[in-house]
Amino acid sequence: MASNNVVGILTSDPLYRSYFFYCSILILKMMLMSSLTGMKRMIYGVFINPEDTVMHKVKTSTNEKIERVRRAHLNDVENIPLFFVSAFIYCLTGPSVAWATLLFKTYTWCRILHTIVYAIKPLPQPSRMLVWVVGYAITGYMALSSLFYFM
Amino acid sequence: MASNNVVGILTSDPLYRSYFFYCSILILKMMLMSSLTGMKRMIYGVFINPEDTVMHKVKTSTNEKIERVRRAHLNDVENIPLFFVSAFIYCLTGPSVAWATLLFKTYTWCRILHTIVYAIKPLPQPSRMLVWVVGYAITGYMALSSLFYFM
Amino acid sequence: MASNNVVGILTSDPLYRSYFFYCSILILKMMLMSSLTGMKRMIYGVFINPEDTVMHKVKTSTNEKIERVRRAHLNDVENIPLFFVSAFIYCLTGPSVAWATLLFKTYTWCRILHTIVYAIKPLPQPSRMLVWVVGYAITGYMALSSLFYFM
Repeated sequence: MASNNVVGILTSDPLYRSYFFYCSILILKMMLMSSLTGMKRMIYGVFINPEDTVMHKVKTSTNEKIERVRRAHLNDVENIPLFFVSAFIYCLTGPSVAWATLLFKTYTWCRILHTIVYAIKPLPQPSRMLVWVVGYAITGYMALSSLFYFM
Repeated sequence: MASNNVVGILTSDPLYRSYFFYCSILILKMMLMSSLTGMKRMIYGVFINPEDTVMHKVKTSTNEKIERVRRAHLNDVENIPLFFVSAFIYCLTGPSVAWATLLFKTYTWCRILHTIVYAIKPLPQPSRMLVWVVGYAITGYMALSSLFYFM
Repeated sequence: MASNNVVGILTSDPLYRSYFFYCSILILKMMLMSSLTGMKRMIYGVFINPEDTVMHKVKTSTNEKIERVRRAHLNDVENIPLFFVSAFIYCLTGPSVAWATLLFKTYTWCRILHTIVYAIKPLPQPSRMLVWVVGYAITGYMALSSLFYFM
């Protein structure tokens, strides 16, 4: 069947397999942020919509611990979709599998650590800044490489 | 022409056609959130930027009905891009067309209903929670399937 | 090698080269928003997390100039990922290279101008509205074209 060509090519190439693997981890990591926010809302009884407060018999309010999780989530939203796109385009510029995988793996660890030091166990700066900057540099490097390749 | 190969393969395979179709609906649905916010800002005369208030001769302010639309929009922003990526990678794992289409269609309906019960006609919980959870479970299922496939 | 097929096809077709080029610019533009926010936080000494204030010996606070940059950033987050997906799917509907490139280039300029008139040098309305609407119309046009093509 015709479609087996594209599917077969993308799913047998270790470069794209690596990309798809780390994308899947990042998707699941980012999804956990919603659950984390929901869990903390239940624990602290802090809700933002009137209809959510009914069962818990509380008023809508905000809570710094929950706002912190939401800021970590927003930081994911600002950064991770850019990784998805820039890493895919970067794959098309023909990097070595080992080098690209190193970038993807480092990026993924940086984002996991970012969540930990931001939302789970807040650590003094510059811990959060450092993990953020490494992920940012990787995305920027891949986007710049792609820019010059496709110019 | 060389490019007709990839284009031809992707655009003739019912699996990818289904994916592209539901992505297009979700893009349009998500775009409507911006228009909805803009319309409600006009109706209520509630603006967040000083330069937006000049024509309407009002001060910047916030309004719970508009904040509700913006939260629904933010929920889209947090969830729908993850669907775009996880559903594409999931297609490459070789699911049946019928099963994948069922997942895409259900997800799309859940997100449309989510907007309705959150931003258009607020309903008591757990209506919003239920439609959100089904969409979340579909994204998670596709991402986990992809993770194991490309491990 | 098998993967050279897909890579070769996508990277030699001027349509996809154009798409990858403008995506890379938009990624870099969007990344600048984080740097801009960070820089303004340093300049004004305005931070949102307690751990960020330690070095600067200030309390957490908000500042309208920084909130403005963050709103411009959020507007990118709401719109640009939709462009990435709708423009890719639109490429598969077989538009002419010249027309598609015109759309991508116009969109990219609109988003750059949007940032300038929103966050860097605030201008009276309808300047921000106009650049936003053109980008919005391009995304909507591509998504609608894709919808009818893959229906």
